[in-house]
Amino acid sequence: MKNEINIGLLGFGVVGSGVAKILQNHQDDLRHKLGVPVVIKKVLVKDLHKKRETILSSEIFTNDLNEVLGDPSIDLIVEVIGGTSEAKKAIESSLRAGKGVVTANKDVMAVSGLELLKLADENKCDLFYEASVGGGIPLIRTLEDGLASDRISALTGIVNGTTNFILTKMKHDKMTYEDALAEATALGFAEADPSADVDGIDAARKMVILASLSFSTEVLLEDVFVRGMKEIKEGDLELAEQFGYTVKLAGSAKKDEEGIEVAVEPVLFPNSHPLASVNNEFNAVYIYGDAVGETMFYGPGAGSLPTATSVTGDIVAACRNLLLGVNGKRLHAPQYARKVKSDSKKFARYFHRIRVKDEVGVLTKLTSIYSDYDASLATVIQHPDKKEAGADLIFITHKISRQQHLDIVKKLNETPEVIGVLSHYRVEGEE
Amino acid sequence: MKNEINIGLLGFGVVGSGVAKILQNHQDDLRHKLGVPVVIKKVLVKDLHKKRETILSSEIFTNDLNEVLGDPSIDLIVEVIGGTSEAKKAIESSLRAGKGVVTANKDVMAVSGLELLKLADENKCDLFYEASVGGGIPLIRTLEDGLASDRISALTGIVNGTTNFILTKMKHDKMTYEDALAEATALGFAEADPSADVDGIDAARKMVILASLSFSTEVLLEDVFVRGMKEIKEGDLELAEQFGYTVKLAGSAKKDEEGIEVAVEPVLFPNSHPLASVNNEFNAVYIYGDAVGETMFYGPGAGSLPTATSVTGDIVAACRNLLLGVNGKRLHAPQYARKVKSDSKKFARYFHRIRVKDEVGVLTKLTSIYSDYDASLATVIQHPDKKEAGADLIFITHKISRQQHLDIVKKLNETPEVIGVLSHYRVEGEE
Repeated sequence: MKNEINIGLLGFGVVGSGVAKILQNHQDDLRHKLGVPVVIKKVLVKDLHKKRETILSSEIFTNDLNEVLGDPSIDLIVEVIGGTSEAKKAIESSLRAGKGVVTANKDVMAVSGLELLKLADENKCDLFYEASVGGGIPLIRTLEDGLASDRISALTGIVNGTTNFILTKMKHDKMTYEDALAEATALGFAEADPSADVDGIDAARKMVILASLSFSTEVLLEDVFVRGMKEIKEGDLELAEQFGYTVKLAGSAKKDEEGIEVAVEPVLFPNSHPLASVNNEFNAVYIYGDAVGETMFYGPGAGSLPTATSVTGDIVAACRNLLLGVNGKRLHAPQYARKVKSDSKKFARYFHRIRVKDEVGVLTKLTSIYSDYDASLATVIQHPDKKEAGADLIFITHKISRQQHLDIVKKLNETPEVIGVLSHYRVEGEE
Repeated sequence: MKNEINIGLLGFGVVGSGVAKILQNHQDDLRHKLGVPVVIKKVLVKDLHKKRETILSSEIFTNDLNEVLGDPSIDLIVEVIGGTSEAKKAIESSLRAGKGVVTANKDVMAVSGLELLKLADENKCDLFYEASVGGGIPLIRTLEDGLASDRISALTGIVNGTTNFILTKMKHDKMTYEDALAEATALGFAEADPSADVDGIDAARKMVILASLSFSTEVLLEDVFVRGMKEIKEGDLELAEQFGYTVKLAGSAKKDEEGIEVAVEPVLFPNSHPLASVNNEFNAVYIYGDAVGETMFYGPGAGSLPTATSVTGDIVAACRNLLLGVNGKRLHAPQYARKVKSDSKKFARYFHRIRVKDEVGVLTKLTSIYSDYDASLATVIQHPDKKEAGADLIFITHKISRQQHLDIVKKLNETPEVIGVLSHYRVEGEE
């Protein structure tokens, strides 16, 4: 029986320093839980001379990965470097050196998750990645253990805190997108280059991780239909509000006999939907299980200590396994072959905002287009506020396929009476 | 390595038949996860001749507990009999026979949880009880594993589906308490004798389980301050609504240096609080961790399949441990000695609805009582709707101790100008 667990911490940024803080502050509790102390033995950083506020001794800092991996007393590697190639290599080297890994790296796990989990299995090591999705919310563990006996059929979630913060500020404080983004950046919620967040790429990576685990199948990033924040046009938020909806950049994943579908896009949620009131930098994921029905998990989607809580939760799990000698005993091979639905098999309601020339007969012309594509309409409204350059027509369809929706939008844009389809959204949660 | 796991199922009611259904329907998925099949080997029932719709062979049903416990091929006991003394004895006998136990029994776990967990530890058996709280929501696992590294400082939750269903119907459909209770009974949400639910006892038991685990300390049922549904008086729900609040029968548990406090009582939640919009039979628990901040877990609080999902989730966890030979390896001794706060150390805001005689000077008289008890007032309103027998005054205090609150209510009731304090509530979530 080991009398302590030694950790090699790769990276000492926002998350890494949070991990060190939690391990320090909750030392007694962790020791009570595990029976032995958990000690940070080495910390890998780029710049050894950078000034850091930490109680860790400067002697344990190194800029040489081999010094960490080569230390036989180190049992577990915690990868919080971020980025892709360097982090992936570090994870691979750790696993090959027989050391378990805890990572917060969604970029690596989304693209190389199955490959790395296989490598972990081969090397009889644990590879835990709770912090890669949903910050402090224990989502991965819930899907793996809590709902282990259920069959997940769908999940919908707000998994990017930056864009949710921006949308909340735009809706509640009537900020412009630019001002809201600037505030998110100032508060540390947005990166210097926010494109991965606002273009939906970050959320898409997280949905790949969640969908792959929920459906026990391989999911590629290219399988995700992605539309980002720029698809939200001026006036859309107010317009949605008038119809009783809230716009969220949401991820969704579904599985049925036809295969899986995964998307990240701006979605209209009815205001009564619990995800409509998830605000600011918070994340929440709705999970639908065949037996359990609907469940929701809500919490801080980012931030130093929340994310570090997930990392240290994984550290506790990995330590338990190490102490029991059962590390690396869970096999991760997916149960089902990858099968992705075509757009003609994905069904939803759609909201179309169409700017038209103010001419006689335009409404009849447009409704006939919907008929031509076999799409029935739930709502048709001529929006009264915008009359200068033309009028805005709002159409909300009954359930149609994404293919029908895309065909209709294309056809509308080619119609002479139409100035343009200003915006279009999937509508969540109602018939 | 075992080539299958055999289960002895004690009880075949709502939850037991749900467990059988899930194990059957999700057989392939479970086999993929565990590597071996999970088989129900024997089922204990009271009446062998009762007609049951099940694919299980009638030959595996027995009315003799010893036949189940004496079967050496049975690895794991699933206790879903319910009730107290018989169920507790069955759990004890199972553990003493060296068989791990999965139970859904909140009554037993609330009163004898620590004792049974100790017995499990001594016999090197697992004792899992996810289904005892929050139906299908994986709360126990989240507190034990997901937030393992954090220090929980408070939790607030709607943990009784029956009363939440009744309150939702009363608020949204303007039903009377009696009609709402009748509907809950008809839908199977309320027991024939609903007193444990409506008097808050069921919720108190669940809060004992959650608080004990969250704070790693012994919590007794008598430590819980309990007020039930009957404290909600006619007109209170509408009155609360006018002030922007929703009434919920909620559990709360807090811990600080002064000790712990646990309560179940009708509480006013600001409508913006996420728990205010948890409706019908759904449960939700807000957990505040020092590092993670606020998280919430939401889902069906009762029902055959949701509760059975938690039971089978535990079965999967117990099977994994059995297959790895690490069953019964987690120690459950509480870390902290029991320390319960006195009422003078419990702080909150309070809402008082006071029927007074319509006399000159009554408002001055009452406000001076609050001053005498050092309580400062946030809101004082004379309610305009009720004028027949007198007037209703509404006082909302700033934070005061529960002792101050109780003293003030007593003093008010002794004041000649006061007909009676009609109702009083703790107010959640604001300064």
